[in-house]
Amino acid sequence: MGFSEADVISVLKEVFATNDPRVKVGIGDDAAVIRGTDQQVITTDMAVQGVHFNLDWSSAFDIGRKITAANVADVLAMGASCEYLVAAVSLTGNEELSWIENLASGMKSEADKAGAVIVGGDIARSAVITIAMTAVGKTSTPILRSGAQVGDSIYVSSLPGWSAAGLELLTREISVNSAIADKALSEFSAPTLDYDVDFRRAHSISDISDSLLIQAQQMADASEVGFEFSTSLIEATAEFKEMNELASEINGDAWQWILGGGEDHVLLATGVNLPGIMIGKIIAGKGISGVDMKKAPVSWSHFT
Amino acid sequence: MGFSEADVISVLKEVFATNDPRVKVGIGDDAAVIRGTDQQVITTDMAVQGVHFNLDWSSAFDIGRKITAANVADVLAMGASCEYLVAAVSLTGNEELSWIENLASGMKSEADKAGAVIVGGDIARSAVITIAMTAVGKTSTPILRSGAQVGDSIYVSSLPGWSAAGLELLTREISVNSAIADKALSEFSAPTLDYDVDFRRAHSISDISDSLLIQAQQMADASEVGFEFSTSLIEATAEFKEMNELASEINGDAWQWILGGGEDHVLLATGVNLPGIMIGKIIAGKGISGVDMKKAPVSWSHFT
Repeated sequence: MGFSEADVISVLKEVFATNDPRVKVGIGDDAAVIRGTDQQVITTDMAVQGVHFNLDWSSAFDIGRKITAANVADVLAMGASCEYLVAAVSLTGNEELSWIENLASGMKSEADKAGAVIVGGDIARSAVITIAMTAVGKTSTPILRSGAQVGDSIYVSSLPGWSAAGLELLTREISVNSAIADKALSEFSAPTLDYDVDFRRAHSISDISDSLLIQAQQMADASEVGFEFSTSLIEATAEFKEMNELASEINGDAWQWILGGGEDHVLLATGVNLPGIMIGKIIAGKGISGVDMKKAPVSWSHFT
Repeated sequence: MGFSEADVISVLKEVFATNDPRVKVGIGDDAAVIRGTDQQVITTDMAVQGVHFNLDWSSAFDIGRKITAANVADVLAMGASCEYLVAAVSLTGNEELSWIENLASGMKSEADKAGAVIVGGDIARSAVITIAMTAVGKTSTPILRSGAQVGDSIYVSSLPGWSAAGLELLTREISVNSAIADKALSEFSAPTLDYDVDFRRAHSISDISDSLLIQAQQMADASEVGFEFSTSLIEATAEFKEMNELASEINGDAWQWILGGGEDHVLLATGVNLPGIMIGKIIAGKGISGVDMKKAPVSWSHFT
């Protein structure tokens, strides 16, 4: 402690230093100057200490990665690529300067993976650490939630549920010594985005931030079609077997994790002959079928 | 209370509804789709309840206007025009839905004045209301802090200090029944940006968010010149006379407000034959002269 706002800014400038040709003026002026494109996407996402992350459970680096991944995933979910990020962070003043540096390094690490550059930010004082990021991406053909068509198959870039599994291990204070449990904990701390699964030929995409069931319902409503999931397709995946093994070991519910868990930032897409994992098909009608709707998260639906 | 997150989003969608031709896809998908330009500016600014605004002192509408103005001012300070805004807001759950609607309406009101459109957002739960906005603007020729040249005059778009004067009235709980006091209170709640003062021919611009002295120092450092202010030029302005009248009435210090006050989001520029109010000149050398440097705010300089 005992560092000044200028010290923080100096550290952030160093972590976020870039010679990316898309950035004409970086951190230090009233705004950054960037090279734009004809058609862009823009999205913002906020994470709050104690709600979206917990200082006892996640390192500063992972917290930085996680909020960055949440923003990048929204850009990928438009069939776009992420170009620029800005971050506004409130700090309590009890952080070490190294914690702030690690937070920024986590942001930069995920931004690098996405091919994006962090061009600006703001810091404020608060009783609660709050991180808001905004991402700007580019796309020639945005892919919306409303594009699902009867005859499409349903795909995920990988199986969701790992973050929920990790959260359950932490909240129930269960220690499991296995690579599968480690994966769940790691995905909870900061999800691994599926950059290698190319959904740019999809008819519709959404990022699974709130849960597979909620996101599928939103896409079904927007597209005016039905989402018919196949439990047998899901059960046949290697990831399901791993998750189910962990669930058996701790008396958990893999289906609850997969259908009701959020924060994995897996992409849910519909289309024909897409990469990723096929888990169902689009049918005439509306809503969701084939899976147990009671697995939908309840905490999400009411704000107060 | 007793409203759901979906209710909040529904209200926000209504307040922020737009048929602006620059917006291809607005609120409701993973990200908004917007029309970009070759050269853009991007900036983000965060406001925290109890630090940047106080629910007892400001209406939701004014809080929305103020944080939007803070973001827009950073865009104007690059010689750019603001095109798009996104807002991430954490709420405690104790707000009425009408309070949230008024907050959004205040954001939209200022965005409308700026010619900008609010295209997206995020809401989160927290013990503290926190509002982070990001603004994207366009400019053919960005104007930096580093462009001040010896021989330039120094201009402000209007006199800063009103917000600080209003804050002093509130913190000292002084009630003054005058149009001047009303102006100070109003400018504290939400500053009036000087959209009609065109600084696009300036050599350098900065937004005065932290105080005239701090911002001038930053510009002097970036431009490697000296800022020589003229107290007589400042004292000759109509605004100084008003502010000084208020200061005399409440035993305040108008110079402290003008030199050390922040949050007015007045623009500070240097150049030749600019509009606005001339308050000094750029000289060879470095740093600031002509005014009392002891009026710089001290609270800003140390984060902890």
